[in-house]
Amino acid sequence: MNKLFAFLVYVGVPLVLAGAFFRWSDMWMFFLCCASIIGLSGYIGRATESLAIVSGPRIGGLLNATFGNAVELIISIFTLKAGMVGIVLASLTGSVLGNLLLVLGLSFFAGGIKFKRQKFSVHDARYNSGLLIFAIIVAFVIPEIFSMTMNPQKTLYLSLGISTVLIALYLAGLFFKLVTHRGVFASSDQPEIEAEVPEWTKGKSIWILLLATSVVAFVSEQLVHTFEMLGDKFGWTELFIGVIIVAIVGNAAEHVSAITMAVKNKMDISVEIAVGSTLQIAMFVTPILVILSLFMSEPMVLVFTLPELVAMITAALLVINLSNDGESNWFEGLTLFAAYLIMGLGFFLL
Amino acid sequence: MNKLFAFLVYVGVPLVLAGAFFRWSDMWMFFLCCASIIGLSGYIGRATESLAIVSGPRIGGLLNATFGNAVELIISIFTLKAGMVGIVLASLTGSVLGNLLLVLGLSFFAGGIKFKRQKFSVHDARYNSGLLIFAIIVAFVIPEIFSMTMNPQKTLYLSLGISTVLIALYLAGLFFKLVTHRGVFASSDQPEIEAEVPEWTKGKSIWILLLATSVVAFVSEQLVHTFEMLGDKFGWTELFIGVIIVAIVGNAAEHVSAITMAVKNKMDISVEIAVGSTLQIAMFVTPILVILSLFMSEPMVLVFTLPELVAMITAALLVINLSNDGESNWFEGLTLFAAYLIMGLGFFLL
Amino acid sequence: MNKLFAFLVYVGVPLVLAGAFFRWSDMWMFFLCCASIIGLSGYIGRATESLAIVSGPRIGGLLNATFGNAVELIISIFTLKAGMVGIVLASLTGSVLGNLLLVLGLSFFAGGIKFKRQKFSVHDARYNSGLLIFAIIVAFVIPEIFSMTMNPQKTLYLSLGISTVLIALYLAGLFFKLVTHRGVFASSDQPEIEAEVPEWTKGKSIWILLLATSVVAFVSEQLVHTFEMLGDKFGWTELFIGVIIVAIVGNAAEHVSAITMAVKNKMDISVEIAVGSTLQIAMFVTPILVILSLFMSEPMVLVFTLPELVAMITAALLVINLSNDGESNWFEGLTLFAAYLIMGLGFFLL
Repeated sequence: MNKLFAFLVYVGVPLVLAGAFFRWSDMWMFFLCCASIIGLSGYIGRATESLAIVSGPRIGGLLNATFGNAVELIISIFTLKAGMVGIVLASLTGSVLGNLLLVLGLSFFAGGIKFKRQKFSVHDARYNSGLLIFAIIVAFVIPEIFSMTMNPQKTLYLSLGISTVLIALYLAGLFFKLVTHRGVFASSDQPEIEAEVPEWTKGKSIWILLLATSVVAFVSEQLVHTFEMLGDKFGWTELFIGVIIVAIVGNAAEHVSAITMAVKNKMDISVEIAVGSTLQIAMFVTPILVILSLFMSEPMVLVFTLPELVAMITAALLVINLSNDGESNWFEGLTLFAAYLIMGLGFFLL
Repeated sequence: MNKLFAFLVYVGVPLVLAGAFFRWSDMWMFFLCCASIIGLSGYIGRATESLAIVSGPRIGGLLNATFGNAVELIISIFTLKAGMVGIVLASLTGSVLGNLLLVLGLSFFAGGIKFKRQKFSVHDARYNSGLLIFAIIVAFVIPEIFSMTMNPQKTLYLSLGISTVLIALYLAGLFFKLVTHRGVFASSDQPEIEAEVPEWTKGKSIWILLLATSVVAFVSEQLVHTFEMLGDKFGWTELFIGVIIVAIVGNAAEHVSAITMAVKNKMDISVEIAVGSTLQIAMFVTPILVILSLFMSEPMVLVFTLPELVAMITAALLVINLSNDGESNWFEGLTLFAAYLIMGLGFFLL
Repeated sequence: MNKLFAFLVYVGVPLVLAGAFFRWSDMWMFFLCCASIIGLSGYIGRATESLAIVSGPRIGGLLNATFGNAVELIISIFTLKAGMVGIVLASLTGSVLGNLLLVLGLSFFAGGIKFKRQKFSVHDARYNSGLLIFAIIVAFVIPEIFSMTMNPQKTLYLSLGISTVLIALYLAGLFFKLVTHRGVFASSDQPEIEAEVPEWTKGKSIWILLLATSVVAFVSEQLVHTFEMLGDKFGWTELFIGVIIVAIVGNAAEHVSAITMAVKNKMDISVEIAVGSTLQIAMFVTPILVILSLFMSEPMVLVFTLPELVAMITAALLVINLSNDGESNWFEGLTLFAAYLIMGLGFFLL
């Protein structure tokens, strides 16, 4: 896998540079950018993990919790800068759906093919499901419904207030998991215990992290320019580009590692990657983008389209129900994947 | 009970024949058809069960899972053929509500009067609740919301796509329960273990199954013609006829056996009849009708009315919450029944 | 605490009397009425508790279950009499949200700061969550959706029917908890076991109960007259006055005792006060007000505004998810409180 990421980076990034200089066709640029970003995410993931091991579990957990969706955040910032608020909200939706249904589904399925029944921490599952309901069903639904009879100014205030609460609760949750209730979670969701040798030294990790992140920023800017073409050429809607395409590209590296862990029967890590990443998108990346959008041309309020919101709510309810017992099997994985198929079809046709 | 079913068939069916020939009033025909169908369902149920015992648990499970709602399916096909798409969707809704709230409610209540607390398989309950959320909250809600901004053509594509996914997942679920994870479920949901002697021989069962099914088909056709009169005479809406009347008639035989089993403290079988039948309606009968409707005058898309959908969602959430602990008592039964009353009143007034 | 309540009553009530006589400004009257009601609720609570201990657990449970929200009921009746139906529905919503999110949230948080993990009866939690779904998600959602296509007359019939079912099921639930399944709940939710000595004698309790209740009635009537001023002066909407102000004043005494119990690690009592009180509001006070409103100028139908209903649904789902395992910690408390903040902000801006 690492070789594939290296290939994508060493071949993809130079070609993106060349393409940006010689103004290649949008179609080519789209594929090159996607490939490069997938490769670069791989490097960012490995650098974060190495750093996390070196820094000990607390700072490590914090690192994972903030850099885990760095790629997603960077792409979104450039999309926001280009004024495509609709695509940003769609790609956030897509990350939530992709992580909850596609990644978790394929993890449950792939792991379940090999093992009859796989277990993971019930404490983690409950913590996650509480926050899924809080973030998606409370914090996303309230502005949707309340904004129906509000003027734009008040909707913006509500969005900012909710975003602040989301970030504060996300940080409090980290404090809970990493400090006050560490003992409860320790046995299950601390991958570092088993793989204690970092791949890279601290210095190398930081360099790679910085370098890969800035290259992602550059490539993302190129990628965003190709979105218009996608709409014209394939007849894809903003919604489909955001929900399916951007979301898969931005999360590809995570997808691979979640499924790999599931096949190794390390279900705790798979669930942490999939659901933990969802919570990070919903409670950290999304509210930060809402606040950042204040300094951009067009503010982004926390109001999704109805199909986006309904897809996230139903996905959350399904995942909570299937994961709350701390057990998984191949059929539960298939159920999640089937839900992803239905929603993907819906967004494609919309 | 069997004597009552025999009486209903031997008296009812000839009268329906006579009535069809002499063109009796719709009012009479409605009652005669209902009575005959209830009686015939009893025979179909017994024949299926006998066949299931003879064929062993795997094929038997498959038989129950496909013939269990044969009557419902036949009535729906004839209603669909008569172009009354609204009544078909309403009667599917009614089957879901009837099974989840009325049958399960009366089973919990009747059993709970006799036994302080009754237990049933937690594994079954979780499997069922996962699929209830998938079918009703994901697969029924998505087309409802997405179709709001879609043209009819795309809504039809979405319906067909979702129907295919539903049938595929239903079959995969049977494979899961009957093949790969049989051990997990075996102790609890295999009624055959206790009642191993089939009532009828294989040959007799097949004959009765074929005969009763074709008579049901004939009677259903007569029944459908009386629906218009019901609306005119009693002022009942399509919705009320479908949700309450057709649903109760089509499922009467199952209702009786679920409650009988509950009083015998065989809660696993009661739950299997009630919730298993709901899943069959939602994941097998409904999508098959959507696909069959392509060959009829008017296509049926997977878009329920808002009251129908909301009633099914809230019923599913209530049942999942009450059954997820694998225990029941009379008050839980009363709660389900009270929910049925509220919804029945709502559909009556609508 | 009791001294504070005494002070509020002995100073507040005479001032309200004086103010009513000399027609003081609405602003002053509003604060005086609120303070007096908070103090009087404290007395009503203590009198009810003393009576409950004297009368034994069954009658005692019944007393708590009917007098527990007497203040709320009285304020609502006077508000209804003044024709402010919107404020009544809003204050009922506010009681539900305040009990589920604010009281339970602060109890979990305050208790969780002192104890790492607190336990309470799983049986109670399940009983409560079943009824929360029944009352809020079934009985409140159905009229909301069905009334959209109904005329006002039929909506009224539906409201009355549902209200009757709610009261009947609430009484059946008391019968279940206090009679048929007392053994199951006894160990956990009978606070009397530990504090068996009543504070006041039977006679004194009854006198205080009657006196305090009638004074509350008088003060409530004064309070209601100040609502219009609140809207004009502060720009507060009916919704905000009802959901936040009236709800907090009407439930203040309960809030204090729930949090006190949590800090003493008597989580069962805290949960019973918070969730039990919610169920009483939803299944007893609300339907009684619907029925009483028939004899007033304007009937009150069981149709909340969409923001009110959505806030209650999401609050219920969050509480069910966090409490169903029978355990709490500070972070769960914070999550509930954060949800209250979000909703409060929403109602303020609406």
